[in-house]
Amino acid sequence: MQPDLLAHGRDVLARQPFSALVEARLDELTPGRAELSLGLRPQLQQQDGFVHGGVLAYLADNALTYAGGSVLGPVLTSEFKINYLRPARDADRLLAVATVVGSGRSQAVCRCDVFLVKGAERVLCAAAQGTIRKVGA
Amino acid sequence: MQPDLLAHGRDVLARQPFSALVEARLDELTPGRAELSLGLRPQLQQQDGFVHGGVLAYLADNALTYAGGSVLGPVLTSEFKINYLRPARDADRLLAVATVVGSGRSQAVCRCDVFLVKGAERVLCAAAQGTIRKVGA
Amino acid sequence: MQPDLLAHGRDVLARQPFSALVEARLDELTPGRAELSLGLRPQLQQQDGFVHGGVLAYLADNALTYAGGSVLGPVLTSEFKINYLRPARDADRLLAVATVVGSGRSQAVCRCDVFLVKGAERVLCAAAQGTIRKVGA
Amino acid sequence: MQPDLLAHGRDVLARQPFSALVEARLDELTPGRAELSLGLRPQLQQQDGFVHGGVLAYLADNALTYAGGSVLGPVLTSEFKINYLRPARDADRLLAVATVVGSGRSQAVCRCDVFLVKGAERVLCAAAQGTIRKVGA
Repeated sequence: MQPDLLAHGRDVLARQPFSALVEARLDELTPGRAELSLGLRPQLQQQDGFVHGGVLAYLADNALTYAGGSVLGPVLTSEFKINYLRPARDADRLLAVATVVGSGRSQAVCRCDVFLVKGAERVLCAAAQGTIRKVGA
Repeated sequence: MQPDLLAHGRDVLARQPFSALVEARLDELTPGRAELSLGLRPQLQQQDGFVHGGVLAYLADNALTYAGGSVLGPVLTSEFKINYLRPARDADRLLAVATVVGSGRSQAVCRCDVFLVKGAERVLCAAAQGTIRKVGA
Repeated sequence: MQPDLLAHGRDVLARQPFSALVEARLDELTPGRAELSLGLRPQLQQQDGFVHGGVLAYLADNALTYAGGSVLGPVLTSEFKINYLRPARDADRLLAVATVVGSGRSQAVCRCDVFLVKGAERVLCAAAQGTIRKVGA
Repeated sequence: MQPDLLAHGRDVLARQPFSALVEARLDELTPGRAELSLGLRPQLQQQDGFVHGGVLAYLADNALTYAGGSVLGPVLTSEFKINYLRPARDADRLLAVATVVGSGRSQAVCRCDVFLVKGAERVLCAAAQGTIRKVGA
């Protein structure tokens, strides 16, 4: 029931005050895959007019968690790493696409690509990988 | 000139709209070491009342960057990883303490401990490690 | 000149005593992609009969380096992370497939999948991501 | 019973064929801390005469695992990341010192410093951080 999964995911997001603060939006959630995005706004920048790396880290972290949660149920992020590829600017939105690359009973390893989206164009600006763990595991 | 370094760091932080949004404060900046903190506020939470992992990631990322910048000058964060140790709640502030563990001409490897601070007590809640690169290198 | 790139890569591998010790083989090297493999042998095991995690880490590290070097020239591995997905056993070979996900003038961010290969079957057993830096950068 | 812990750790190491191949030695094992080392030998080098990065990754991986296992019992390495700080050469031994920075019921987060040891001198050449998980958790 993918529609239910997405609806549930959006309900969780709506109950995350920090996600509301950065105006994140859950665009897609299917078993093993999540798409989370936010618009580039001045409030999210660092001192040079780029989106702050911490915002990209938030987006990757949360997308990884959604991807893991889509196969494990209630989860926590255990750890992740992120590589920044280019400054995040000159775009409409940041889109994080996370997928499960392997999962067991208690945890899932996921990857995430963070893209700058401008119109129909997507440019990769960060790459992440991490471990999502089932709550209680 | 440590006072100047701290003053310069605070000036940079004041020009980061996202750091203002999360009300981050640069508590200390000396060559090879940075302390960055923020108060626990409802706006920074996820759905269970904990500080959102993305906020801890922001704090670690930015503290690592300050530590690296304290020895390299203008820098960018190349990459970092973070391990979450416990939910961030029941505290007054989150404090990230970042130190340079090794640096060369163009980049520095730094570590960061993120603590929950309640009164005089500090409890480790996340551990990070990453690479900070001189701008233009 | 892909054949030259592969031949050059194999020449470099032949001059790595440690790669000879683990009997690694460079199966493919094209701009932005490397395949490196080794046979499962008792000498590479840990105490439970699995291939030692350090062998998987070696294979991922070296495949990432080859992928980065295929677009940058002489390189060093700056850093990488690896997630282990399942014990490495019951297979003929371990195959690391590394690709460049983004590169600039001085460094490349690469990902690597490490597979257990048994006959025609491939099962993912580890996932890595790291930064490869041009020598002198 | 620290002597027993060290003796048990050395027994496990002796049953790791790969650790025998690289001639690793467990120098210390106490609850929350492990020291693992190996001598620099030509067989462990890459093409420029440095110790291969994969050897450093092996040493960090195994030291992290011992540190985690010292507080959790039988464990597996879930993931780790390593930053290389300088080429590993001109030394007698490589020494990995791993410590637990936080642990729960089922996993421990550990850090590891890898030093070049020459006589009485120690120089940091790599820094690692990772997650060690209790078997069956």
